[in-house]
Amino acid sequence: MISGRFITLEGGEGVGKTTNIAYIKSLLEEKHIPFLLTREPGGTALAENLRQLLLDKEQEAIAGQAELLMMFAARAQHIKHIIKPALELGTWVLCDRFTDATYAYQGGGRNMAVSAIQWLENFVQADLRPDLTLLLDAPIQLGMQRAEQRGKLDRFESEKMAFFAKVREAYLAIAEQQPQRVKIIDATQSLEKVQNQIKQTLTPFIYE
Amino acid sequence: MISGRFITLEGGEGVGKTTNIAYIKSLLEEKHIPFLLTREPGGTALAENLRQLLLDKEQEAIAGQAELLMMFAARAQHIKHIIKPALELGTWVLCDRFTDATYAYQGGGRNMAVSAIQWLENFVQADLRPDLTLLLDAPIQLGMQRAEQRGKLDRFESEKMAFFAKVREAYLAIAEQQPQRVKIIDATQSLEKVQNQIKQTLTPFIYE
Repeated sequence: MISGRFITLEGGEGVGKTTNIAYIKSLLEEKHIPFLLTREPGGTALAENLRQLLLDKEQEAIAGQAELLMMFAARAQHIKHIIKPALELGTWVLCDRFTDATYAYQGGGRNMAVSAIQWLENFVQADLRPDLTLLLDAPIQLGMQRAEQRGKLDRFESEKMAFFAKVREAYLAIAEQQPQRVKIIDATQSLEKVQNQIKQTLTPFIYE
Repeated sequence: MISGRFITLEGGEGVGKTTNIAYIKSLLEEKHIPFLLTREPGGTALAENLRQLLLDKEQEAIAGQAELLMMFAARAQHIKHIIKPALELGTWVLCDRFTDATYAYQGGGRNMAVSAIQWLENFVQADLRPDLTLLLDAPIQLGMQRAEQRGKLDRFESEKMAFFAKVREAYLAIAEQQPQRVKIIDATQSLEKVQNQIKQTLTPFIYE
Protein backbone atom coordinates (compact mmCIF):
# COMPACT_ATOMS: atom_id res chain seq x y z
CA MET A 1 0.00 0.00 0.00
CA ILE A 2 1.56 3.25 -1.18
CA SER A 3 0.81 6.24 0.99
CA GLY A 4 3.42 8.94 0.24
CA ARG A 5 2.74 11.34 -2.60
CA PHE A 6 4.91 11.21 -5.70
CA ILE A 7 5.47 14.66 -7.22
CA THR A 8 7.64 15.31 -10.27
CA LEU A 9 8.96 18.52 -11.74
CA GLU A 10 9.44 18.76 -15.49
CA GLY A 11 10.48 21.33 -18.06
CA GLY A 12 13.04 22.24 -20.69
CA GLU A 13 16.30 24.13 -20.25
CA GLY A 14 16.39 27.41 -18.34
CA VAL A 15 12.83 27.33 -16.99
CA GLY A 16 13.94 27.70 -13.36
CA LYS A 17 13.59 24.16 -12.06
CA THR A 18 16.31 24.52 -9.42
CA THR A 19 14.86 27.67 -7.87
CA ASN A 20 11.36 26.24 -7.83
CA ILE A 21 12.39 22.90 -6.39
CA ALA A 22 13.86 24.84 -3.47
CA TYR A 23 10.52 26.62 -3.11
CA ILE A 24 8.52 23.35 -3.15
CA LYS A 25 10.90 21.96 -0.51
CA SER A 26 10.18 24.96 1.70
CA LEU A 27 6.40 24.39 1.35
CA LEU A 28 6.74 20.74 2.37
CA GLU A 29 9.03 21.57 5.27
CA GLU A 30 6.60 24.25 6.48
CA LYS A 31 3.91 21.57 6.73
CA HIS A 32 6.34 19.05 8.30
CA ILE A 33 5.73 16.59 5.50
CA PRO A 34 8.48 13.92 5.36
CA PHE A 35 9.90 13.88 1.84
CA LEU A 36 12.96 13.08 -0.15
CA LEU A 37 14.28 15.05 -3.06
CA THR A 38 15.80 13.07 -5.89
CA ARG A 39 16.44 13.35 -9.61
CA GLU A 40 16.50 11.44 -12.86
CA PRO A 41 18.48 10.02 -14.38
CA GLY A 42 20.08 9.26 -11.02
CA GLY A 43 19.06 8.69 -7.43
CA THR A 44 21.23 5.65 -6.65
CA ALA A 45 24.97 5.10 -7.11
CA LEU A 46 24.40 2.86 -10.14
CA ALA A 47 21.81 5.21 -11.64
CA GLU A 48 24.19 8.16 -11.13
CA ASN A 49 26.89 6.15 -12.92
CA LEU A 50 24.47 5.63 -15.80
CA ARG A 51 23.72 9.37 -15.75
CA GLN A 52 27.42 10.13 -16.09
CA LEU A 53 27.70 7.79 -19.07
CA LEU A 54 24.61 9.41 -20.63
CA LEU A 55 25.87 12.98 -20.16
CA ASP A 56 29.56 12.41 -20.95
CA LYS A 57 30.31 14.42 -24.08
CA GLU A 58 33.70 12.75 -24.54
CA GLN A 59 31.88 9.44 -24.91
CA GLU A 60 31.16 7.81 -28.28
CA ALA A 61 27.83 8.79 -29.85
CA ILE A 62 25.06 6.92 -28.03
CA ALA A 63 22.59 5.00 -30.19
CA GLY A 64 19.02 6.21 -29.62
CA GLN A 65 17.92 2.81 -28.37
CA ALA A 66 20.89 2.52 -26.02
CA GLU A 67 20.10 5.95 -24.55
CA LEU A 68 16.45 5.03 -24.05
CA LEU A 69 17.29 1.69 -22.40
CA MET A 70 19.89 3.26 -20.11
CA MET A 71 17.31 5.86 -19.02
CA PHE A 72 14.87 3.12 -18.08
CA ALA A 73 17.59 0.97 -16.49
CA ALA A 74 18.46 3.91 -14.21
CA ARG A 75 14.75 4.41 -13.56
CA ALA A 76 14.19 0.74 -12.65
CA GLN A 77 17.01 0.97 -10.13
CA HIS A 78 15.75 4.29 -8.75
CA ILE A 79 12.20 3.02 -8.34
CA LYS A 80 13.19 -0.25 -6.69
CA HIS A 81 15.76 1.11 -4.24
CA ILE A 82 14.59 4.67 -3.55
CA ILE A 83 11.16 5.76 -4.80
CA LYS A 84 9.00 2.76 -3.89
CA PRO A 85 10.53 2.13 -0.46
CA ALA A 86 10.06 5.83 0.41
CA LEU A 87 6.45 5.97 -0.78
CA GLU A 88 5.65 2.77 1.08
CA LEU A 89 6.92 4.36 4.30
CA GLY A 90 4.68 7.37 3.73
CA THR A 91 7.56 9.61 2.69
CA TRP A 92 6.75 11.92 -0.18
CA VAL A 93 9.05 11.84 -3.18
CA LEU A 94 9.88 15.02 -5.06
CA CYS A 95 11.68 14.08 -8.25
CA ASP A 96 13.50 16.42 -10.63
CA ARG A 97 12.36 14.91 -13.95
CA PHE A 98 10.82 11.48 -14.50
CA THR A 99 9.26 9.54 -17.38
CA ASP A 100 7.61 12.59 -18.95
CA ALA A 101 11.16 13.78 -19.69
CA THR A 102 11.76 10.53 -21.60
CA TYR A 103 8.65 11.14 -23.69
CA ALA A 104 9.79 14.73 -24.27
CA TYR A 105 13.53 14.28 -24.91
CA GLN A 106 13.87 10.76 -26.34
CA GLY A 107 10.39 10.65 -27.85
CA GLY A 108 9.80 14.24 -28.99
CA GLY A 109 13.41 15.37 -29.32
CA ARG A 110 14.99 12.24 -30.76
CA ASN A 111 11.97 10.65 -32.44
CA MET A 112 12.13 7.38 -30.52
CA ALA A 113 8.82 5.55 -30.97
CA VAL A 114 6.24 6.49 -28.33
CA SER A 115 5.00 2.88 -28.35
CA ALA A 116 8.49 1.74 -27.26
CA ILE A 117 8.56 4.29 -24.43
CA GLN A 118 5.09 3.15 -23.34
CA TRP A 119 6.20 -0.49 -23.30
CA LEU A 120 9.26 0.37 -21.21
CA GLU A 121 7.20 2.55 -18.87
CA ASN A 122 4.84 -0.35 -18.14
CA PHE A 123 7.71 -2.83 -17.86
CA VAL A 124 9.69 -0.73 -15.37
CA GLN A 125 6.96 1.10 -13.46
CA ALA A 126 4.02 -1.32 -13.46
CA ASP A 127 1.30 0.95 -12.02
CA LEU A 128 3.59 3.58 -10.51
CA ARG A 129 2.82 7.05 -11.91
CA PRO A 130 3.39 10.49 -10.37
CA ASP A 131 0.43 11.81 -8.38
CA LEU A 132 1.22 15.31 -9.58
CA THR A 133 3.57 16.74 -12.18
CA LEU A 134 4.47 20.41 -12.38
CA LEU A 135 5.50 21.34 -15.90
CA LEU A 136 7.48 24.59 -15.95
CA ASP A 137 6.84 25.94 -19.41
CA ALA A 138 8.36 28.78 -21.39
CA PRO A 139 8.56 29.40 -25.12
CA ILE A 140 11.92 28.56 -26.64
CA GLN A 141 11.66 31.63 -28.89
CA LEU A 142 13.49 33.67 -26.23
CA GLY A 143 16.59 31.51 -26.54
CA MET A 144 16.22 31.43 -30.29
CA GLN A 145 15.96 35.22 -30.53
CA ARG A 146 19.11 35.56 -28.48
CA ALA A 147 20.99 33.21 -30.80
CA GLU A 148 19.69 35.10 -33.84
CA GLN A 149 20.81 38.42 -32.39
CA ARG A 150 24.33 37.05 -32.21
CA GLY A 151 24.18 36.49 -35.98
CA LYS A 152 22.83 33.81 -38.26
CA LEU A 153 22.12 30.49 -36.50
CA ASP A 154 24.74 27.90 -37.40
CA ARG A 155 23.62 24.36 -38.22
CA PHE A 156 24.24 23.11 -34.70
CA GLU A 157 22.30 25.97 -33.09
CA SER A 158 19.42 25.54 -35.53
CA GLU A 159 19.31 21.81 -34.75
CA LYS A 160 19.42 22.54 -31.05
CA MET A 161 16.51 24.96 -31.34
CA ALA A 162 14.49 22.50 -33.42
CA PHE A 163 15.27 19.86 -30.80
CA PHE A 164 14.07 22.02 -27.90
CA ALA A 165 10.97 23.00 -29.84
CA LYS A 166 10.09 19.31 -30.22
CA VAL A 167 10.81 18.68 -26.52
CA ARG A 168 8.48 21.49 -25.51
CA GLU A 169 5.79 20.32 -27.92
CA ALA A 170 5.94 16.80 -26.48
CA TYR A 171 5.74 18.11 -22.90
CA LEU A 172 2.68 20.23 -23.77
CA ALA A 173 1.03 17.27 -25.52
CA ILE A 174 1.36 15.20 -22.33
CA ALA A 175 -0.16 18.04 -20.28
CA GLU A 176 -3.05 18.22 -22.71
CA GLN A 177 -3.61 14.45 -22.59
CA GLN A 178 -3.33 14.20 -18.80
CA PRO A 179 -4.64 17.47 -17.37
CA GLN A 180 -5.54 15.88 -14.03
CA ARG A 181 -1.95 14.90 -13.32
CA VAL A 182 0.14 17.43 -15.24
CA LYS A 183 -0.21 21.11 -14.34
CA ILE A 184 1.43 23.69 -16.57
CA ILE A 185 3.22 26.47 -14.69
CA ASP A 186 3.86 29.53 -16.84
CA ALA A 187 7.58 30.12 -16.28
CA THR A 188 7.63 33.43 -18.13
CA GLN A 189 5.86 35.11 -15.19
CA SER A 190 7.67 36.88 -12.36
CA LEU A 191 9.16 34.50 -9.80
CA GLU A 192 6.51 35.60 -7.29
CA LYS A 193 3.69 34.71 -9.67
CA VAL A 194 5.34 31.40 -10.60
CA GLN A 195 5.60 30.49 -6.93
CA ASN A 196 2.01 31.55 -6.24
CA GLN A 197 0.88 29.28 -9.05
CA ILE A 198 3.01 26.42 -7.68
CA LYS A 199 1.58 26.93 -4.19
CA GLN A 200 -1.99 26.95 -5.49
CA THR A 201 -1.34 23.78 -7.46
CA LEU A 202 0.16 22.01 -4.47
CA THR A 203 -2.48 23.21 -2.02
CA PRO A 204 -4.99 20.35 -2.54
CA PHE A 205 -2.13 17.89 -1.96
CA ILE A 206 -0.42 19.52 0.97
CA TYR A 207 -3.32 21.00 2.84
CA GLU A 208 -6.01 18.36 2.34
CA MET B 1 22.91 -5.70 -47.59
CA ILE B 2 24.67 -7.78 -44.97
CA SER B 3 27.32 -10.11 -46.31
CA GLY B 4 29.63 -11.08 -43.43
CA ARG B 5 28.68 -14.05 -41.29
CA PHE B 6 27.68 -13.54 -37.69
CA ILE B 7 28.81 -16.37 -35.42
CA THR B 8 28.25 -16.46 -31.68
CA LEU B 9 29.69 -18.70 -29.00
CA GLU B 10 27.58 -19.51 -25.96
CA GLY B 11 27.79 -21.63 -22.84
CA GLY B 12 27.84 -21.62 -19.06
CA GLU B 13 30.85 -21.28 -16.78
CA GLY B 14 33.93 -23.44 -17.30
CA VAL B 15 32.93 -24.99 -20.63
CA GLY B 16 36.12 -23.85 -22.39
CA LYS B 17 34.90 -20.84 -24.36
CA THR B 18 38.27 -19.07 -24.36
CA THR B 19 40.23 -22.05 -25.69
CA ASN B 20 37.67 -22.76 -28.36
CA ILE B 21 37.38 -19.15 -29.49
CA ALA B 22 41.12 -19.24 -30.13
CA TYR B 23 40.58 -22.41 -32.17
CA ILE B 24 37.78 -20.83 -34.25
CA LYS B 25 40.02 -17.81 -34.88
CA SER B 26 42.73 -20.12 -36.22
CA LEU B 27 40.22 -21.76 -38.60
CA LEU B 28 39.10 -18.39 -39.97
CA GLU B 29 42.68 -17.16 -40.29
CA GLU B 30 43.66 -20.34 -42.12
CA LYS B 31 41.01 -19.55 -44.75
CA HIS B 32 41.95 -15.82 -44.82
CA ILE B 33 38.44 -14.81 -43.83
CA PRO B 34 38.36 -11.21 -42.51
CA PHE B 35 36.73 -11.24 -39.10
CA LEU B 36 36.57 -9.42 -35.83
CA LEU B 37 36.35 -10.99 -32.43
CA THR B 38 34.20 -9.23 -29.88
CA ARG B 39 32.20 -9.98 -26.75
CA GLU B 40 29.05 -9.18 -24.84
CA PRO B 41 28.30 -7.31 -22.80
CA GLY B 42 30.94 -5.03 -24.31
CA GLY B 43 32.51 -4.29 -27.65
CA THR B 44 32.51 -0.46 -27.48
CA ALA B 45 33.84 1.90 -24.79
CA LEU B 46 30.34 2.68 -23.55
CA ALA B 47 29.26 -0.97 -23.65
CA GLU B 48 32.41 -1.97 -21.73
CA ASN B 49 31.55 0.70 -19.14
CA LEU B 50 28.10 -0.87 -18.84
CA ARG B 51 29.76 -4.29 -18.51
CA GLN B 52 31.86 -3.00 -15.61
CA LEU B 53 28.76 -1.65 -13.86
CA LEU B 54 27.00 -4.99 -14.44
CA LEU B 55 29.87 -7.09 -13.09
CA ASP B 56 30.95 -4.83 -10.20
CA LYS B 57 30.35 -6.80 -7.01
CA GLU B 58 30.89 -3.72 -4.84
CA GLN B 59 27.92 -2.10 -6.56
CA GLU B 60 24.46 -1.96 -5.03
CA ALA B 61 22.21 -4.92 -5.93
CA ILE B 62 20.97 -4.47 -9.48
CA ALA B 63 17.22 -4.75 -10.06
CA GLY B 64 16.38 -7.52 -12.54
CA GLN B 65 14.82 -5.05 -14.95
CA ALA B 66 17.77 -2.66 -14.71
CA GLU B 67 20.17 -5.52 -15.47
CA LEU B 68 18.12 -6.62 -18.47
CA LEU B 69 17.85 -3.08 -19.86
CA MET B 70 21.58 -2.42 -19.37
CA MET B 71 22.37 -5.65 -21.26
CA PHE B 72 20.24 -4.53 -24.19
CA ALA B 73 21.57 -0.94 -24.02
CA ALA B 74 25.11 -2.32 -24.36
CA ARG B 75 23.89 -4.57 -27.18
CA ALA B 76 22.23 -1.67 -29.06
CA GLN B 77 25.50 0.24 -28.92
CA HIS B 78 27.55 -2.80 -29.93
CA ILE B 79 25.30 -3.58 -32.90
CA LYS B 80 25.15 -0.01 -34.19
CA HIS B 81 28.84 0.83 -33.89
CA ILE B 82 30.61 -2.51 -34.33
CA ILE B 83 28.59 -5.53 -35.45
CA LYS B 84 26.46 -4.05 -38.25
CA PRO B 85 29.21 -1.91 -39.82
CA ALA B 86 31.53 -4.95 -39.86
CA LEU B 87 28.94 -7.30 -41.39
CA GLU B 88 28.04 -4.69 -44.00
CA LEU B 89 31.70 -4.54 -45.04
CA GLY B 90 31.76 -8.31 -45.44
CA THR B 91 33.77 -8.82 -42.25
CA TRP B 92 32.71 -11.80 -40.21
CA VAL B 93 31.85 -11.22 -36.58
CA LEU B 94 32.74 -13.80 -33.95
CA CYS B 95 31.03 -12.82 -30.70
CA ASP B 96 31.65 -14.29 -27.26
CA ARG B 97 28.04 -14.45 -26.03
CA PHE B 98 25.03 -12.63 -27.44
CA THR B 99 21.27 -12.58 -26.91
CA ASP B 100 21.01 -16.30 -26.17
CA ALA B 101 22.99 -15.52 -23.02
CA THR B 102 20.29 -13.02 -22.03
CA TYR B 103 17.61 -15.68 -22.46
CA ALA B 104 19.76 -18.12 -20.45
CA TYR B 105 21.02 -15.89 -17.61
CA GLN B 106 18.36 -13.18 -17.20
CA GLY B 107 15.49 -15.35 -18.47
CA GLY B 108 16.37 -18.83 -17.22
CA GLY B 109 18.61 -17.86 -14.31
CA ARG B 110 16.78 -14.82 -12.98
CA ASN B 111 13.24 -15.56 -14.17
CA MET B 112 12.84 -12.37 -16.20
CA ALA B 113 9.84 -12.79 -18.51
CA VAL B 114 10.77 -14.32 -21.87
CA SER B 115 8.18 -12.06 -23.53
CA ALA B 116 10.08 -9.00 -22.26
CA ILE B 117 13.38 -10.36 -23.61
CA GLN B 118 11.69 -11.04 -26.96
CA TRP B 119 10.33 -7.51 -27.11
CA LEU B 120 13.77 -6.05 -26.35
CA GLU B 121 15.44 -8.38 -28.86
CA ASN B 122 13.14 -7.12 -31.62
CA PHE B 123 13.50 -3.49 -30.50
CA VAL B 124 17.30 -3.54 -30.46
CA GLN B 125 18.14 -6.06 -33.19
CA ALA B 126 15.32 -5.67 -35.73
CA ASP B 127 16.08 -8.64 -38.01
CA LEU B 128 19.70 -9.19 -36.93
CA ARG B 129 20.22 -12.74 -35.66
CA PRO B 130 23.39 -14.86 -35.57
CA ASP B 131 23.90 -17.05 -38.63
CA LEU B 132 25.39 -19.74 -36.44
CA THR B 133 25.63 -20.25 -32.68
CA LEU B 134 27.94 -22.79 -31.08
CA LEU B 135 26.63 -23.81 -27.68
CA LEU B 136 29.37 -25.38 -25.56
CA ASP B 137 27.48 -27.64 -23.23
CA ALA B 138 28.48 -29.59 -20.14
CA PRO B 139 26.43 -30.86 -17.21
CA ILE B 140 26.72 -28.74 -14.07
CA GLN B 141 26.71 -31.91 -11.96
CA LEU B 142 30.51 -31.98 -12.08
CA GLY B 143 30.75 -28.65 -10.30
CA MET B 144 28.01 -29.66 -7.93
CA GLN B 145 29.71 -32.94 -7.04
CA ARG B 146 32.91 -31.06 -6.29
CA ALA B 147 31.07 -28.69 -3.95
CA GLU B 148 29.37 -31.61 -2.21
CA GLN B 149 32.68 -33.38 -1.72
CA ARG B 150 33.93 -30.32 0.16
CA GLY B 151 31.04 -30.80 2.59
CA LYS B 152 27.40 -29.85 2.67
CA LEU B 153 26.47 -27.13 0.16
CA ASP B 154 25.86 -23.82 1.89
CA ARG B 155 22.85 -21.74 0.90
CA PHE B 156 24.85 -19.56 -1.48
CA GLU B 157 26.43 -22.56 -3.22
CA SER B 158 23.08 -24.31 -3.53
CA GLU B 159 21.55 -21.18 -5.03
CA LYS B 160 24.47 -20.85 -7.41
CA MET B 161 24.05 -24.44 -8.55
CA ALA B 162 20.30 -24.03 -8.99
CA PHE B 163 21.02 -20.85 -10.97
CA PHE B 164 23.49 -22.57 -13.31
CA ALA B 165 21.12 -25.49 -13.76
CA LYS B 166 18.42 -23.06 -14.95
CA VAL B 167 20.90 -21.29 -17.23
CA ARG B 168 21.88 -24.59 -18.84
CA GLU B 169 18.26 -25.67 -19.21
CA ALA B 170 17.41 -22.38 -20.95
CA TYR B 171 20.37 -22.73 -23.32
CA LEU B 172 19.34 -26.28 -24.23
CA ALA B 173 15.74 -25.19 -24.78
CA ILE B 174 16.92 -22.58 -27.31
CA ALA B 175 19.01 -25.21 -29.11
CA GLU B 176 15.99 -27.47 -29.26
CA GLN B 177 13.76 -24.70 -30.62
CA GLN B 178 16.29 -23.45 -33.18
CA PRO B 179 18.32 -26.48 -34.27
CA GLN B 180 19.22 -24.89 -37.62
CA ARG B 181 21.01 -21.99 -35.96
CA VAL B 182 22.19 -23.39 -32.63
CA LYS B 183 24.58 -26.33 -32.62
CA ILE B 184 25.35 -28.08 -29.35
CA ILE B 185 29.01 -28.90 -28.84
CA ASP B 186 29.55 -31.54 -26.17
CA ALA B 187 32.18 -29.88 -23.97
CA THR B 188 32.75 -33.00 -21.85
CA GLN B 189 34.69 -34.61 -24.70
CA SER B 190 38.47 -34.42 -25.09
CA LEU B 191 39.68 -31.09 -26.48
CA GLU B 192 40.55 -32.82 -29.74
CA LYS B 193 37.03 -34.16 -30.15
CA VAL B 194 35.48 -30.83 -29.18
CA GLN B 195 37.56 -29.09 -31.83
CA ASN B 196 36.72 -31.71 -34.45
CA GLN B 197 33.06 -31.12 -33.73
CA ILE B 198 33.52 -27.34 -33.98
CA LYS B 199 35.39 -27.70 -37.27
CA GLN B 200 32.67 -29.94 -38.72
CA THR B 201 29.99 -27.48 -37.64
CA LEU B 202 31.82 -24.53 -39.17
CA THR B 203 32.72 -26.36 -42.39
CA PRO B 204 29.55 -25.51 -44.35
CA PHE B 205 30.10 -21.85 -43.44
CA ILE B 206 33.84 -21.56 -44.03
CA TYR B 207 34.37 -23.89 -46.95
CA GLU B 208 31.23 -23.31 -48.98
